[in-house]
Amino acid sequence: MTPKCLSILGVGLLGGSIGLAARSLLSDCKVIGYGHRKSTLELALQVGALDEAYDEFAPAVRDSDLIILCTPVGLLGQMLQNIAPHLKPGAVVTDVGSTKRSVVSDGQRLLPPHAHFVGSHPMAGSEKRGVEFARTDLLRGALCIVTPTPQTDASALQQVEAFWQAMGMRLFRMSPEDHDARLADISHLPHAVAAALVLMQEEASLHLTGKGFLDTTRIAGGDGALWRDIFLDNRDNLRNSLMRLRATMDRLLALLEAQDAEALTQWLDSAARRRERLVQQKLKELDQ
Amino acid sequence: MTPKCLSILGVGLLGGSIGLAARSLLSDCKVIGYGHRKSTLELALQVGALDEAYDEFAPAVRDSDLIILCTPVGLLGQMLQNIAPHLKPGAVVTDVGSTKRSVVSDGQRLLPPHAHFVGSHPMAGSEKRGVEFARTDLLRGALCIVTPTPQTDASALQQVEAFWQAMGMRLFRMSPEDHDARLADISHLPHAVAAALVLMQEEASLHLTGKGFLDTTRIAGGDGALWRDIFLDNRDNLRNSLMRLRATMDRLLALLEAQDAEALTQWLDSAARRRERLVQQKLKELDQ
Repeated sequence: MTPKCLSILGVGLLGGSIGLAARSLLSDCKVIGYGHRKSTLELALQVGALDEAYDEFAPAVRDSDLIILCTPVGLLGQMLQNIAPHLKPGAVVTDVGSTKRSVVSDGQRLLPPHAHFVGSHPMAGSEKRGVEFARTDLLRGALCIVTPTPQTDASALQQVEAFWQAMGMRLFRMSPEDHDARLADISHLPHAVAAALVLMQEEASLHLTGKGFLDTTRIAGGDGALWRDIFLDNRDNLRNSLMRLRATMDRLLALLEAQDAEALTQWLDSAARRRERLVQQKLKELDQ
Repeated sequence: MTPKCLSILGVGLLGGSIGLAARSLLSDCKVIGYGHRKSTLELALQVGALDEAYDEFAPAVRDSDLIILCTPVGLLGQMLQNIAPHLKPGAVVTDVGSTKRSVVSDGQRLLPPHAHFVGSHPMAGSEKRGVEFARTDLLRGALCIVTPTPQTDASALQQVEAFWQAMGMRLFRMSPEDHDARLADISHLPHAVAAALVLMQEEASLHLTGKGFLDTTRIAGGDGALWRDIFLDNRDNLRNSLMRLRATMDRLLALLEAQDAEALTQWLDSAARRRERLVQQKLKELDQ
């Protein structure tokens, strides 16, 4: 069920970690990397993330059973076009993008009939970038969302899920539409808010900030171009999330205006309790 | 310059940590605690945060040179009234509240002419509550904002600053008005936003959240009643902060609407760079 030949297109932190994990966990699987910078490919070979490396598409994908696109969301469509002519019959293509509607639609449209696309979103990473930070255990225990549609080939879906499972990931299936709506709420919105919280500060206040402020804004430290792609690709959902956050903050403004101490306590306590439930749930997952 | 007799009114995490630090760092200073629960006072004595403990105001403050109010912001006015009749001539009273305009005004109004009030905000703490989590080093290296006004007695101000300095804190002076405006931006607003981010989520999305979401919302885990007091006391500034955050998010909405990739990258990158500068500055402070 797992691939004999795996291609990783884009060898950064996540691509490199997939390579390390696949080489360590899959017996008898060749891991091929594609990148446009020779220095990155050399580094990826050095750290043991790849068996072979190419800066051209044909040799990087033509023998592969499973191809994983690990480039920023904005480049996925172009990459699908670039590899389409070189895929062998039965090849399965997936990706690791943070949005799923556009890449799944592109995958179904741009690949030849003898190849199959399945959208994936392995939810693992860090603010660090580059294959030099790749870790064999980055994926282990993390959640991977797989986004089949009614058009998705059943065997390709099985192969993709079997691969992520072999990497130690927990699987969750949902539609590309559901994925993008929920991720806007739990990931893209918090990033937008963290950035806004940093940007709205007066310069003279910054030296007063403490650990709380740094924690709240940690995710704003990510790469701008990467998040620009995600925000633009998912802008309708992000807009909806921003409007719903605004409605929640308007509720707070109304409670402050009315000086409604009881309702305000409830508002704050229900947030604290809900978060605490979430922390307990996450701790339980870690135990499993 | 440092007190021979110090009173701590309210022996929780912060009050207990002040007691531990004062007993460890000040030679020849008696530390007296006040609390309304006998069990808390016994625990505070047990962990070594106090020399003596009382559940009445008169014996808790009548011999003291320096009295520190360590109760939630909403109780400070009442506490000032309760101790006012029992203060000895020259007694200096300060507090640890997260808002400063109301307590400084109350202190100047409610204390007898022979005692002096100086507002303080030692910026140390954690989500943990209770004297059982008190630590001798909680204050060390942290920032303490002291908020004198034109009416503040110069000697009392010196005594309060000398005390916090003896506790190892870095001092910063500003007016109560400046304090409350800046703290609304860097502390009360992030708390409000974190709570709103938790509350606006759909239940079915929560299991998809990861470390990023938990970090961003960590400060929403605090005690509701405590933050209600802070929000209500500082509601004009918090409202202003919320409106300015909204304006910043409206700018993001406009960039998304226009699909302005370049300006969006700039918006995201400037947030990331500004936060990175802040992190570097904090690391430098830790080195000192």
